[in-house]
Amino acid sequence: MKTKISSIALSIIFLGLADCKSSDKDDGYRLWLRYDQIENESVLNDYKQIIQNIIVTGESPTIFAAREEILYGLSALFGAEVPVNKEVKEGCLLIGTPESSSVINGYFKGDTISAIGNEGYSIFSTQSEGYKITVITGNTDVGILYGVFHFLKLLQTRQSIAELNIASKPGIQNRLLNHWDNLDRKVERGYAGFSLWKWNTLPDYIDPRYKDYARANASVGINGTVLTNVNANAQVLTPEYLEKVAALADVFRPYGIRVYLTARFSAPIEIGGLRTADPLQKNVIEWWNNKAKEIYSYIPDFGGFLVKANSEGQPGPQNYGRSHAEGANLLARAVKPYNGIVMWRAFVYSNEEPEDRAKQAYNEFKPLDGKFEDNVLIQVKNGPIDFQPREPFHPLFGAMEQTPVMMEFQVTQEYLGQDIHLTYLAPLYEECLHSDTYAKGTGSEVFKVINGSLFNYNETGIAGVSNIGDDRNWCGHPIAQANWYALGQLAWDPEAASQEIAEEWIRMTYSNNQEVIDTMLKIMMISREAGVNYRTPLGLHHQMAWHHHYGPGPWIKDKPRADWTSAYYNKADETGIGFDRTKTGSNAVSQYFSPLTELFGNIETCPEELLLWFHHVPWNYKMKSGNTLWEELCMKYYQGTDQVREMQTKWNSLEGKIDDERFKHVQSLLKIQVRDAIEWRNACLLYYQTFSKMPIPEKYEQPDQTLEYYMKVDRKYLPGS
Amino acid sequence: MKTKISSIALSIIFLGLADCKSSDKDDGYRLWLRYDQIENESVLNDYKQIIQNIIVTGESPTIFAAREEILYGLSALFGAEVPVNKEVKEGCLLIGTPESSSVINGYFKGDTISAIGNEGYSIFSTQSEGYKITVITGNTDVGILYGVFHFLKLLQTRQSIAELNIASKPGIQNRLLNHWDNLDRKVERGYAGFSLWKWNTLPDYIDPRYKDYARANASVGINGTVLTNVNANAQVLTPEYLEKVAALADVFRPYGIRVYLTARFSAPIEIGGLRTADPLQKNVIEWWNNKAKEIYSYIPDFGGFLVKANSEGQPGPQNYGRSHAEGANLLARAVKPYNGIVMWRAFVYSNEEPEDRAKQAYNEFKPLDGKFEDNVLIQVKNGPIDFQPREPFHPLFGAMEQTPVMMEFQVTQEYLGQDIHLTYLAPLYEECLHSDTYAKGTGSEVFKVINGSLFNYNETGIAGVSNIGDDRNWCGHPIAQANWYALGQLAWDPEAASQEIAEEWIRMTYSNNQEVIDTMLKIMMISREAGVNYRTPLGLHHQMAWHHHYGPGPWIKDKPRADWTSAYYNKADETGIGFDRTKTGSNAVSQYFSPLTELFGNIETCPEELLLWFHHVPWNYKMKSGNTLWEELCMKYYQGTDQVREMQTKWNSLEGKIDDERFKHVQSLLKIQVRDAIEWRNACLLYYQTFSKMPIPEKYEQPDQTLEYYMKVDRKYLPGS
Repeated sequence: MKTKISSIALSIIFLGLADCKSSDKDDGYRLWLRYDQIENESVLNDYKQIIQNIIVTGESPTIFAAREEILYGLSALFGAEVPVNKEVKEGCLLIGTPESSSVINGYFKGDTISAIGNEGYSIFSTQSEGYKITVITGNTDVGILYGVFHFLKLLQTRQSIAELNIASKPGIQNRLLNHWDNLDRKVERGYAGFSLWKWNTLPDYIDPRYKDYARANASVGINGTVLTNVNANAQVLTPEYLEKVAALADVFRPYGIRVYLTARFSAPIEIGGLRTADPLQKNVIEWWNNKAKEIYSYIPDFGGFLVKANSEGQPGPQNYGRSHAEGANLLARAVKPYNGIVMWRAFVYSNEEPEDRAKQAYNEFKPLDGKFEDNVLIQVKNGPIDFQPREPFHPLFGAMEQTPVMMEFQVTQEYLGQDIHLTYLAPLYEECLHSDTYAKGTGSEVFKVINGSLFNYNETGIAGVSNIGDDRNWCGHPIAQANWYALGQLAWDPEAASQEIAEEWIRMTYSNNQEVIDTMLKIMMISREAGVNYRTPLGLHHQMAWHHHYGPGPWIKDKPRADWTSAYYNKADETGIGFDRTKTGSNAVSQYFSPLTELFGNIETCPEELLLWFHHVPWNYKMKSGNTLWEELCMKYYQGTDQVREMQTKWNSLEGKIDDERFKHVQSLLKIQVRDAIEWRNACLLYYQTFSKMPIPEKYEQPDQTLEYYMKVDRKYLPGS
Repeated sequence: MKTKISSIALSIIFLGLADCKSSDKDDGYRLWLRYDQIENESVLNDYKQIIQNIIVTGESPTIFAAREEILYGLSALFGAEVPVNKEVKEGCLLIGTPESSSVINGYFKGDTISAIGNEGYSIFSTQSEGYKITVITGNTDVGILYGVFHFLKLLQTRQSIAELNIASKPGIQNRLLNHWDNLDRKVERGYAGFSLWKWNTLPDYIDPRYKDYARANASVGINGTVLTNVNANAQVLTPEYLEKVAALADVFRPYGIRVYLTARFSAPIEIGGLRTADPLQKNVIEWWNNKAKEIYSYIPDFGGFLVKANSEGQPGPQNYGRSHAEGANLLARAVKPYNGIVMWRAFVYSNEEPEDRAKQAYNEFKPLDGKFEDNVLIQVKNGPIDFQPREPFHPLFGAMEQTPVMMEFQVTQEYLGQDIHLTYLAPLYEECLHSDTYAKGTGSEVFKVINGSLFNYNETGIAGVSNIGDDRNWCGHPIAQANWYALGQLAWDPEAASQEIAEEWIRMTYSNNQEVIDTMLKIMMISREAGVNYRTPLGLHHQMAWHHHYGPGPWIKDKPRADWTSAYYNKADETGIGFDRTKTGSNAVSQYFSPLTELFGNIETCPEELLLWFHHVPWNYKMKSGNTLWEELCMKYYQGTDQVREMQTKWNSLEGKIDDERFKHVQSLLKIQVRDAIEWRNACLLYYQTFSKMPIPEKYEQPDQTLEYYMKVDRKYLPGS
C-alpha cells in the first residue's frame, strides 16, 4: 500500500508541477527551478531522443542531491519518468567524476578536466561503444551538482543539447549571501517577511524550506551564507545557538554551501565574561581561539566570520586604540587552523563631524594594505557611500595590492523601492564590475580586482546582502527573485552580461514565449535607470526621507549627524547643486587613479551621470545636450516617471500571457510605483527649485501638489527598518 | 488560445488539488478545504449517482462565491467537472432561495424556512417532476453559502447524501475573530508570522490570501473580524487606513464577513487634535459621531468597535472620572444610526496594589448592568484571570441580566505552548460553555447566557482571539488550525461536542482512514488536559515565566506588580499552597450564584481540578484518591508528562499514513514539547518542594536538574511578545 501510494505520489508531484505553467495560480515559490513540462512537442521529442536514460555514479550526499535533482527535473520537464540504468546504452545521460565512472575516466583529457578546477564542470556529447551519450562530469561532487543544474537550465531555456561541449568554473572563490537577520527573526532592511531561520524550533524542526533555499543557491553557484546580521548579536556564538547553526549547516552541506556567522567584536565581554575585548590581550586571544575550536566542533566546515567593527556604533579594535588590522588578525588567527576566513567590512565612518564620508574607508584601510593575515578579505561596498541608486565604484577597488578586496553588493532594495518597486539590479552590478580602476593602467576593471587576477590575490570573494525572507515568493516583489539569481550568476562569472542573465531568468521563471521574454526584458533592463532618474539623476545621492529609505527627503538637514542628511550631499544653494569632491572641495577624486582623478575632477570631462557626485554645478551650466543643468535635471526626473509608466504599459500587455496571480501582483505594485515615482520627482524638483528659482518647463505636466504637501508626507510602519 | 489554456487550467487546478492527498508534500495551506479526490470508488460512485449536475440560481457576489465553491469543490472531490444545467434533471443539485428558484419556492414550507432565520440553511433530498434531486436553500444568499459549505463537508467526511433533511441556523448572532494585529504587521501573542494584513500595499494589491481567509471563515460560519489589536492604534481610523480597511471589507463581504476595528479611546486627541477624550464633552461626542459617519462612507456595512479601556495602560473613560458605561455609550451612539455595535471588554483590573484580580471585572461591571445602550455587548474572557490552561468560568456570565455578555475565547495559545505545543482547545471551550452558572437555577449554563436564551439578550456574540498569521500553514503549529475551526463551529452551535468537531476536522484536514482518525482523536482530546497537568494542575494558575508566557516560573515574585507574579497566585508556603478565595480569603466565591458559592467555598466539595484556585490547602491534606495533596500534585505533574509521551508515541505510529511533511513537522514539535513538559514538571515540583519539604515519590523518575538550573533558563527572542 505504502509503496503504491508513493509511486503514485511521485508521478503526481511531477504532474502537479507541470500543471502550474498553464494554471492561473502561481505563488512564485518555485523560483527559477520550475521544471514545467515542455509544451513544444518537437523540442520535447528532440530532448527525449537525446536523453533516454540516466546513470549517476558516485556515493555522497552531494551526489545524492545531484541525482535527486536530475531525476526530479527531467521527469517534470518530460512529463514522464526517465529510467535509471546500470550500464551505458543509447541516449544515456552519464553523470559522475573520472574516479566514480570508468567510462568517464576513458574520456578524461587531463587539460580539459584540470581547466575546470575543483568546483567546475564539463558537459559534452560523445559516443560510447557506438552509443550516443551525454556526459556531465567534474573533478568533485559539487562540480557535478553545478553541472546538473546547468544541464537542467539548458532544457528549461529550450537550448539545443545535441552537440554539447561545455566547460565552466567559477571566477570567484567565495560566493556568499549576507543575511542581515536577527535572532528574533526580524530582518534589517528585509522586505520579504521574517527570517527564514526558525531559531525557536531549531535544531529539532527542519523546515523543508531550508533545503529549497540550498537548492536555489546551488543552482546559481552560491557556496556560502552568512546567517546573521552584521549588526551582530554575540548570542549566536553560544552553544545553544551553535547547535542550531549546525543543523542548518547539515542541510546546506550537500549543496556545497558553507555557513558563516557575524562576530560581534565585544563577544568576549558579553558572553565570555571577560572585562575587555582588546585584540592584543592574551585572554581575549585565548577566548577567540577557544571559541573557534568550539564552533568547529559543531560545524567542521564552518566558513568563518564576517565583521562590522567601529562602524555605526558597533564595537571594534579602535575602542582599545588598535587598528582594524589588529582586530581582523585576531579572528583570522583563531579560524586559520581550520581553514576559516575573516571578511572584514570597510564600511566605516566617523561618529564625529566627519571628513567627506566618501573618503573615510579609503583613508582608514589604504595604509593597512599588507598588514592583514592571509585569510582576511576586506569586504567593500560597490560605492563609497551606501548602496545608492548610482555611485562611482569604491576607490578601494584597485588600491589594495597586497590585501584581498571582496565585493559587497546589496540585493535587498533598501534605496531602490524595497518590496514595492520593480528594479532589476544586475545592470548596477555590471556597471560597477566593468568600471576601469586604471590601477595597473587601462583594463584594470573592478571585476579583475575581485576575481584576483589583477593582483594575484590568494583569496577572492563576492557577497550579496540578501533580499530573502519567509514570504511565500521568497523576495517580496515577484521580480526581486531575479536579483538573487543575478547575484549568483555574476559571482560565478563576474564578466557575465546582465541582459543575458535576465533572459535566462525570464525563460526559467515565467515563460519561453518570445513576446513575454522581449516585454519583460525591456521592463527589467530599463528599471534601474528609471529608478535613478526619478530619485537621484546626474550623480545626486542620499536624498531619501529620514525615518526610512523609501520616499524622498531632499530637504532633510540640521540633524545631529550632518552626514545622515540630504542637504550634506546635495549642497543645493542659490549658486547651484552638487558635492564638490575636486581639489577645490573634499578632493575625493584624489583617491582614484589617473586618469580618473583628472576625468572626474574636471567638470568638462566628468561623466554627466556622476556630475553632481563630484561637482557643485551652477544652475545654468550648459550640459552636453545644450540644456542648462536645471533643464537637464527636470528632463531626467520626467524621463524617470515616463519610463515607469512605460514599464507599466508593457507589463499590462502581458495579461493572459503569464499566470494571473503573478501578473496581478506586479501590476498592483507598478500602480504604487508610478505614484511614488511622481512623488519623488515632484518633491525633489520643488525643493531644488527653491534654490534654482527657475520654472519647470511648461512642456512637462506640472506638480499637482506643493512642496509643503510632500514635506508633510509621513510614511509609518514600513518594513525592514 | 487563451480560452484553451484556462479550460486546461481549470481541470488542472483540480488535478493539482486532488494530487496532494497521496503526495508526500503538503504545507497545510488548504486548511480543511482540501477537496482531495475521493479514493473509495463505491463512495465516489454513490455520490456521482446522486449529484449529476448543478443549478445555482440567483445573482449576487455571495451567490457567485457559493457557485464558485460548489463547482470547485465537487469537481475536485469527483476528479471531474460537474455539468451546470439550466433546468432540473435527474441527479440535480439545486441551489437557491425560494425567491431565486420557482422550483424551490414550490417546496417552500413556511415553518421550515422560517425556522432557519436569516443566516441558516436547509439541505434536503426530494423529487421534482419525477427526478431525484438535492436542494440547498436558505432565506438569504449567505445562508446558501453556508449550506454549500455544509454540503461539501458531508462529502469531505464521507457521509451519506442519499436521504438528506438538514436544517441549521447559528446559535449566536455575532461570531467574530479578534486579530491582535498591529499596523507594523507584528501580531501581539501571535506565533504564526506577520499579520495577514499587508497595510503597506493595500488598497492597491489584493493578496489572494485575503479571499482564502474569507472562504475559511465562511466555511465555519464566522461572520465578523476585528482587524486590529485591542491595544489600539488610532491611526487605523484615519482616511489613509480606512481606504485600506475598505479594500479588505470588499473582499470579505461576499463571504458574509463584516469588518470591525478597535477604537482607541484617546483617538480624538491623537488624530482629532482635541485636548480631551472625555466622553461627556460635546466636541468629543461630535468627533466620534463624525468619525463614525466617515467610516461608514468607506465601509457601508462596517460592524462596529471593539474597545479595551482603562486596562493595562490603555486610555478610557475613567481617565475623566467617567464610567465604562459612559465610555461605551459614547461609541455606541455614534455607530447606532448605521446598525453598528460596540464590544466593550470587561478585562480590566487596577494598576494599584489590587483587590484579588479575579474579582475586579465583576466589581466593575455588575453595578453597571442595564446602564448600557442596547447596541453594546460586554466582552468577557472565559475565566476571571487570563486564558489560563484551566480557570473556572467568569462570574460575569449569568450576572448581567439586562446587558448582553459575549464570550472571548483565546484561540492563539499564549499560555498553552504557543506555536510549539500540540493543544486542541475545544475541550476547554466546551468545559466553559457547559458550566452551570445557576443564575436562574439548575440548567443556566454559560452557553445559554451567550446565546441569549437565559436573559433574552437582543444581541449575542462570541469572539476568538485569532491564532492566524502569514505562515504558510496559517497557524504555526499544524494542529492549531483545529482551534480556528472549532471556534467557528462552537460559535455556530455553542452546544456542539468538541470530540465531534475534532473528528470532522481530522477527516477534512488529514484523512478519512479510521486508524488515522482514531489516533489523532486520542492525541487531540487528551492534549489540553495534558497541558494543564504538566503546567498547573489542581487549580494552580499563572505560574509562567516573567518575560514570556511559554516556560515555567513559579518562583516569580517581588516585582513592581504583585498580580503579575506567580507567588501572588500560588501562595505557596510551609503550611500549604493555593489562593484562598473563600470567605476567609478574598471571598471571590461570593461572586458566583448559590450553590456554587458554597460548593467552591467548601474545601470538601470544591472540584479538585479547581481546588488550589479557591483554597489554600495543607501539603498533607487528604485528597479523594487517598493521596496527600503533595502526592496528588506529583501524580498530576507526572501524569502530564506521561500523557505527552503517549501523544508522541501515538503520533509516531502515523508515519506513512499521512503526508510526510506535516507528519515530520508535528513529530519535531512533539520532541520539543516532551522536553518542555518535563521542564515544567520538574521546575514547578522542585520549587513547591522548597515549601512542602516532602520528597518526590521514588516511583517517579527524579528530576535530572536542580531548581537553580531551571531558574537560570532564559528563553530569548520568543515570538509574539
